[in-house]
Amino acid sequence: MEKENKFDLLNDLLEHKDFHRFREAISRMNEADIADFIEGLSQNNATLAFRTLPKGLAAETFSKLPPETQRTIINSITEQELSFIVEELSVDDAVDMLEELPANVVIRVLEHATPETRKVINEFLNYPENSVGSIMTVEYTSLRAHMTVQDAIKHIRRIGEDRELIYTCYVTDNRRILEGVVTVKELLLAQDNQRIEDLMERNVICAATTEDQEDAIQQMMKYDFISLPVVDLEKRLVGIVTVDDVMDVMQQEATEDFEKMAAMAPSERPYLKTTVFSLAKNRIAWLLVLMISGMVTGGILGKYEAAFSTMPLLVTFIPMLTDTGGNAGSQSSTLVIRGMAVGDIKSEDFLRVLWKELRVSILVGAVLSAVNYLRLMISYPGNKGVALTVSLAMFATVMMAKTIGGVLPMAAKVLHADPAIMAAPLITTIVDAGSLIIYFTIAQRLLAL
Amino acid sequence: MEKENKFDLLNDLLEHKDFHRFREAISRMNEADIADFIEGLSQNNATLAFRTLPKGLAAETFSKLPPETQRTIINSITEQELSFIVEELSVDDAVDMLEELPANVVIRVLEHATPETRKVINEFLNYPENSVGSIMTVEYTSLRAHMTVQDAIKHIRRIGEDRELIYTCYVTDNRRILEGVVTVKELLLAQDNQRIEDLMERNVICAATTEDQEDAIQQMMKYDFISLPVVDLEKRLVGIVTVDDVMDVMQQEATEDFEKMAAMAPSERPYLKTTVFSLAKNRIAWLLVLMISGMVTGGILGKYEAAFSTMPLLVTFIPMLTDTGGNAGSQSSTLVIRGMAVGDIKSEDFLRVLWKELRVSILVGAVLSAVNYLRLMISYPGNKGVALTVSLAMFATVMMAKTIGGVLPMAAKVLHADPAIMAAPLITTIVDAGSLIIYFTIAQRLLAL
Repeated sequence: MEKENKFDLLNDLLEHKDFHRFREAISRMNEADIADFIEGLSQNNATLAFRTLPKGLAAETFSKLPPETQRTIINSITEQELSFIVEELSVDDAVDMLEELPANVVIRVLEHATPETRKVINEFLNYPENSVGSIMTVEYTSLRAHMTVQDAIKHIRRIGEDRELIYTCYVTDNRRILEGVVTVKELLLAQDNQRIEDLMERNVICAATTEDQEDAIQQMMKYDFISLPVVDLEKRLVGIVTVDDVMDVMQQEATEDFEKMAAMAPSERPYLKTTVFSLAKNRIAWLLVLMISGMVTGGILGKYEAAFSTMPLLVTFIPMLTDTGGNAGSQSSTLVIRGMAVGDIKSEDFLRVLWKELRVSILVGAVLSAVNYLRLMISYPGNKGVALTVSLAMFATVMMAKTIGGVLPMAAKVLHADPAIMAAPLITTIVDAGSLIIYFTIAQRLLAL
Repeated sequence: MEKENKFDLLNDLLEHKDFHRFREAISRMNEADIADFIEGLSQNNATLAFRTLPKGLAAETFSKLPPETQRTIINSITEQELSFIVEELSVDDAVDMLEELPANVVIRVLEHATPETRKVINEFLNYPENSVGSIMTVEYTSLRAHMTVQDAIKHIRRIGEDRELIYTCYVTDNRRILEGVVTVKELLLAQDNQRIEDLMERNVICAATTEDQEDAIQQMMKYDFISLPVVDLEKRLVGIVTVDDVMDVMQQEATEDFEKMAAMAPSERPYLKTTVFSLAKNRIAWLLVLMISGMVTGGILGKYEAAFSTMPLLVTFIPMLTDTGGNAGSQSSTLVIRGMAVGDIKSEDFLRVLWKELRVSILVGAVLSAVNYLRLMISYPGNKGVALTVSLAMFATVMMAKTIGGVLPMAAKVLHADPAIMAAPLITTIVDAGSLIIYFTIAQRLLAL
């Protein structure tokens, strides 16, 4: 409510070209809110509003804007302004921005960076996607072991302005090798003349640039860190991963898993900002693959044409059987895929998962087939054979579905494929084929078709 | 690797009952690792190992242990030890622990808390599940507006030991009304004699105890906070939400959504630690509901028995049609459900989502039905009618599925139901019935059955 009132006021001032009061009002706001406001403006007004911001705030706001607004602004500010923003952004934000921009704009941006910044940015652009290196930042605070607490606090006061996170300080030697870690809380609680080497924790938990970002996230969550140091192959400190970036990555990875598990190519943009064409593109490939698999299932069904021509009633139980099989299988695969993503299930748990799913499927299968038998005895009283066929098929289908659902994601992981592929849609298709074979095989035996 | 070696050493010392060196070695480890180690021990050894820990470390380790190990330890330590742990735990950890423990143990724990702690714990236990109040902690740092920077730092040094997070300080008046916020970074960068009121940000972003925890998470992610102040109805500061707890909640909420969207009751425990019986219980209810819906679908199919008895070939296209419909619908519902969970899609976007899904479904439907037509003309060259029937049904099914998939989760939200229910399994069941009606209606018209 309050925010909307503020936006109304800003719009008003902008309309009346009262830039003095506009600047005053907007400068008092948080950069995330300013970005929200600017995002809602027309291209011209967005640039206009952005240019009224004080320099430091402008850079902070810039990093919160969506790529298309960033592009608009880059295209309409002076070289000097652009160069200032690039230098002010923390390296990870600058890299995120560059990855979203078209090549000609990237060149224009890099031309306006200092050689030093350009070198760091280039290094970052080379880290593989989803690696720890790709999400780290270089604005960390480092101390030396021989410093006293007083020296350390003085040092932090001097350099703190430019550092993203000052609260966890990393102690390095003169070759930048990571030796220890000390928090500002510990510094504040210590005596002024104590030495860092006597305070610091030497047993430092850190990540390597090349590690998977998910591993770094699990580490930070386990140890409740607000930053995690990142080292290169020689154990030299090269950066830190901060908790705010980790939260973004967590949310984004969960979203990607949701998308993959619903048979879509992951999208980089929020739903409402993705074009119809790219939404369709993300969805069509898997739908085609699954549709063609569905044709194979149709082919299998075709083989039993004689059976269901003789007894068309059998056809009416197909949707219930295949859907239940699909649902039972997706339950198992979802739990296993998610369990692996959050680190609860490891590859070596293969047999434990299999054993668990087998027992669960017996319980679940028994209940479902009993309900089915009762219902069929009521609906088709004379038809014991059909009731038995459907119930037995249900039991066998649930067992097969849960075993396949539990095992396939783990098999994918072992083969270095993405377990999320082995989710509901693919499991359903596989289980469909299996359940039809089970169903008609039982029917042919029991009903002598 | 290193951690496993350390565990081996500890096991060795424990086996040889060398408690002196055991205590020395274990005390040098991080509490999260100690908890990992203790969790892997037998009940007796777990208690034994736990009791060698120095008091402060014991409480920290305790909060990282899983509920069953906590229970074992509570049942075998002295009243004094228990009382110490309860007082040392931060309130949110104590409450988390109590929520998992059986009633008789809870009573035993509360008996050993001071009246003050007991009061706070009782208050926390009363906050509704998933509310901000239920995840906040009371160990925040508060300052007064008239303090100088020097006073403030002195104050923080004095009370910091007991505070979970000291880096963001909240400024309150004598009635505890929240007036402003200032970070330790700002204090360190300021002059000693500056006043807090001149440094603090007055425009404080905060949450209410009764708000949904997801909203608090979105706020923290938007503003990159490491803690968020929580106020009561009178705007008095009552606690803070810290970033480490928020990460746990984020992961847990995503997991719950995965479970619900795969038609399961959410589980509180990791997969491998959930019993077979409760895994089965979590899965059976939805499977039954969906199976019974599948029977309804079977009933619909039964009405067209005359049609597929005359032309059994039609049956073989059912799996492909219904599966593709289900997949197309789940894609849409997954994107919309996730978009709402992360705050990208709001209820007022209903028409935009509908319009988007309509256009996407036309594109996707056109491609899928064209592929189908071509394939059928090749497989059944003489049978133009069937090819046309299946292709038209495919197009209409995809349109219906995507519209339903996009709209139902939003309708659920408007009706204050959980949108995650409107995911793949339910959408598939609804779409199944719809696609069969579409298919056989078209078949009856075009093929004159």
